[in-house]
Amino acid sequence: MRTSTLAMALCLALASPLADAGETLVSAARIHTMDAARPTVGALVHDDDGRILALGDSAALAAEYPRAKHLDLGDATVIPGLIDAHGHMMGLGLTRLRVHLSGLRGKAEVLEKLRAFAADLPPGAWLTGRGWDQNLWPDKRFPDAADLDAAFPDRPVWLRRVDGHAGWANTAAMKLAKRPLDGDWQPAGGRILREHGKATGVLVDGAMALIEDAMPALDEATADRALALGLRDAVAHGLTGVHDAGVPLAQLRRYQRFADAGRLPLRVTAWAEGDGDALDFLCDEGPYQHPSRRLKMRSVKVYADGALGSRGAALLADYSDDRGNHGLMTTAPAELLRIARKARRCGVQMATHAIGDAGNRHVLDAYERALGADAAKAGHRWRIEHAQIVALEDIPRFARLGLIASMQPTHATSDMPWAVDRVGPARIQGAYAWRKFRDAGVRLALGSDFPIESVDPRLGLYAAATRMDDEGRPAGGWWPQEKLTAWEALRGFTLDAAYAGFAEREVGSLAPGKRADFVVLAEDPLAVPAAALRTLTIKATYVDGKAVYDAR
Amino acid sequence: MRTSTLAMALCLALASPLADAGETLVSAARIHTMDAARPTVGALVHDDDGRILALGDSAALAAEYPRAKHLDLGDATVIPGLIDAHGHMMGLGLTRLRVHLSGLRGKAEVLEKLRAFAADLPPGAWLTGRGWDQNLWPDKRFPDAADLDAAFPDRPVWLRRVDGHAGWANTAAMKLAKRPLDGDWQPAGGRILREHGKATGVLVDGAMALIEDAMPALDEATADRALALGLRDAVAHGLTGVHDAGVPLAQLRRYQRFADAGRLPLRVTAWAEGDGDALDFLCDEGPYQHPSRRLKMRSVKVYADGALGSRGAALLADYSDDRGNHGLMTTAPAELLRIARKARRCGVQMATHAIGDAGNRHVLDAYERALGADAAKAGHRWRIEHAQIVALEDIPRFARLGLIASMQPTHATSDMPWAVDRVGPARIQGAYAWRKFRDAGVRLALGSDFPIESVDPRLGLYAAATRMDDEGRPAGGWWPQEKLTAWEALRGFTLDAAYAGFAEREVGSLAPGKRADFVVLAEDPLAVPAAALRTLTIKATYVDGKAVYDAR
Repeated sequence: MRTSTLAMALCLALASPLADAGETLVSAARIHTMDAARPTVGALVHDDDGRILALGDSAALAAEYPRAKHLDLGDATVIPGLIDAHGHMMGLGLTRLRVHLSGLRGKAEVLEKLRAFAADLPPGAWLTGRGWDQNLWPDKRFPDAADLDAAFPDRPVWLRRVDGHAGWANTAAMKLAKRPLDGDWQPAGGRILREHGKATGVLVDGAMALIEDAMPALDEATADRALALGLRDAVAHGLTGVHDAGVPLAQLRRYQRFADAGRLPLRVTAWAEGDGDALDFLCDEGPYQHPSRRLKMRSVKVYADGALGSRGAALLADYSDDRGNHGLMTTAPAELLRIARKARRCGVQMATHAIGDAGNRHVLDAYERALGADAAKAGHRWRIEHAQIVALEDIPRFARLGLIASMQPTHATSDMPWAVDRVGPARIQGAYAWRKFRDAGVRLALGSDFPIESVDPRLGLYAAATRMDDEGRPAGGWWPQEKLTAWEALRGFTLDAAYAGFAEREVGSLAPGKRADFVVLAEDPLAVPAAALRTLTIKATYVDGKAVYDAR
Repeated sequence: MRTSTLAMALCLALASPLADAGETLVSAARIHTMDAARPTVGALVHDDDGRILALGDSAALAAEYPRAKHLDLGDATVIPGLIDAHGHMMGLGLTRLRVHLSGLRGKAEVLEKLRAFAADLPPGAWLTGRGWDQNLWPDKRFPDAADLDAAFPDRPVWLRRVDGHAGWANTAAMKLAKRPLDGDWQPAGGRILREHGKATGVLVDGAMALIEDAMPALDEATADRALALGLRDAVAHGLTGVHDAGVPLAQLRRYQRFADAGRLPLRVTAWAEGDGDALDFLCDEGPYQHPSRRLKMRSVKVYADGALGSRGAALLADYSDDRGNHGLMTTAPAELLRIARKARRCGVQMATHAIGDAGNRHVLDAYERALGADAAKAGHRWRIEHAQIVALEDIPRFARLGLIASMQPTHATSDMPWAVDRVGPARIQGAYAWRKFRDAGVRLALGSDFPIESVDPRLGLYAAATRMDDEGRPAGGWWPQEKLTAWEALRGFTLDAAYAGFAEREVGSLAPGKRADFVVLAEDPLAVPAAALRTLTIKATYVDGKAVYDAR
């Protein structure tokens, strides 16, 4: 009896809110929980481990948890941590290793920015960048190597022009080219600019490879640095989770090292890249989860077709602006089916890139055959990435097969200047067709495809709710029938993204037992006009109850 | 062969667009069709009978139909005719027989408005009105009969105060009271205001019946006049269809007379009122349709419970602001089931008023039992009217049973000042829960419940897209997660309302073979900010290709 009494006392102590378990009471003007049972509360309590214990009225919770620390966020609005359901973390990090020169209005400004950026670089490491445009400069003339040499006599410098069709090297970089750039020869498909036979430093199109082939492969330290920068960038934009859309096993190992070292500030759900080493790892070992819960892998990413802008997306009929071309499958249908069957056998979630209506149909066909009778059960949570141009009759198939449409609102607003040219007025009805998917009962997981688009999820919320570009064009939105409400957009970036990552019991909404992953905003995203979603102020990002970004 | 050649030639002539079949080409800045295959076009062609022949580009259609008359609507936007899925046409008409005095700032203004209104009344007919408020007048004193007698010495006048708790009669009206109003007696529950024993003309609460009991019953001529006024009011607000939520057989007959005489400017889908003579007519004769296609009846309306404002809606638990009261069923569950079985047997669509969560559950139970295995087939299109407060777990039942939720956006914004008081913060999550219904796969037919709310569907579109009142409160909307996009709101007032009335093959969208029912707006409702939906400019309303309202 003694033991059980003691045990009971212990249990009572553990269960009692009076015991100091390192609880924190977070209060704000409003906390949008994304929990249907109580969508808005004034406060939540989480324990020291970051587990939410209770939500409700601030005063009532303060009475219930009298020893909790109090984090009063004043007139801020709290929303669940945002989850980007489709991004490329290393790609994002690598863009952060490059200096961004777009919009600068003179060489002095360019040099100033280069010097500041180089201050953080190891000695001798390449300084790379992009975005310069001599048309914005007073003299509108191409720059040359000498402009860079004074500041960077030894460090190689390579800067791509804004359009990507020319590069600007300093002398240190040119010296590393495999073949001397001076003389009178020219490479295939490109041009070396010269004065009196001496290369000026500007190389056009095919000539750029002469410098880029001389750059060192990515070393581990640089890759780590890129990843750290990408992660930092993500949490600074309110992301608490990212689905990394395809990595090799080596990248999973890098993530594991980061997780072991406590260097993952957000939750990464990484997918195996194609039928490669990471998929074999999953088939051998089963779904992977790091003990910190910050890293998971249980999915495989495959590319079915190309992209729309370059007319590589596979269409059922010719491109409207390129007769005779209907794009191409980058993975043959039979191979898609083979991988789908392997994924099914291994219990792995499949996430397939499909942009064109033919690409999507082939994926639907492969999924249908591989999933068989299990399709309708939907526990598989298989996904189609982008689901960009879909035949109207195929949209209900997503619902019947229990698939998730993983879509990127900013793709619609980036592509809208030319998308109708590509596919014409009929097929465009099934393009970026968020409302039709939702009306068909299909779950939408939203993301950005960073670094193809900005990592900033505010731009995604804005694009979803307005179908307008950053300048507010076209007025009223492009195919406005497909708009989502701000709440639906938020749901796509929280609860439904969590579901797509098998994580809706942990994150995606703020509810008892879930993780205290949340974003602190100065404004209420459900109250501001849709046009203001892109300029929401992100004051802080919390993961497991700890600030991983704080701008206050 | 001769005959068949002739027939073929005739067919070719009929089929040829060159034949003048009284075609009209309607062009506008944009025509939103609500047809998913091509949501926006520049022009449509309809024949003389009002049947849409083609939609597309204006120049192409002009070439294809060279002899068509051209109606160029310039920079206007055309949308499908709006359908109010729940209104009371006679009720609307009767309000138009009364003069509206609210907001007037003195007796002189009141008398001026009364005189203008009386000019259209037959001699001797009662002049009735409501809305006066002596607190808005300079002297803030109750009026008296003498104020009215000079202008109306013979015509009885009866004017209810803005709050409905007092009335103002002239001497001619007081003379018609069954018992002389002078003296010192007072009626139960009311008060006759007197000076020196003489009634002043103002009667309070229970005393109002002394005048109102003396008013003649509605005669046929007046009822016809009310109906005509109601119909005129409806088309002036862009309505081309109304579901009349429960009428006796006599009202169907009145509608038939109007239809025979070409006096129905819009399509009326009338429902039989309860288990009465109109339902028996349907059971005996089958679904009714007038040859003009302007009048249909194939449904029965039943009331399951009361209203929320008066705490008569049936709740599963007590009212949050009235412990011990959980409202009441106005039709017992067993009786609901009996009528549902009768409706099923007669092939009649059932449309049941249910406001509270208990009211809704009893209706769901009755429908489920009556429909049996046919429920999932959904061909029945049974409806729940208002579906106002629904237990969260009951919302998916609407989808499983194939039911239509017939909801009124303005009810949400009218009720929001006190709705949380009535049901508390938990049950409010299932209140006016448009998004949850749509997410559960339930079709939403939208309406106004006029004259309870304004007949103006612009207010419904605005309420649906903003969840704000007419002054824009609360900022960002009340429970904003339930907002609809402008397009979804429009769909609820067009295609989905048409579906709820078994009419989606005729109306609800603009597509070949459908009727040319449309509204001409100065603004594009899919492009304006949601806040501007309530002030869209209705320039004209067309039914069967003919203008039934024209403000140009």
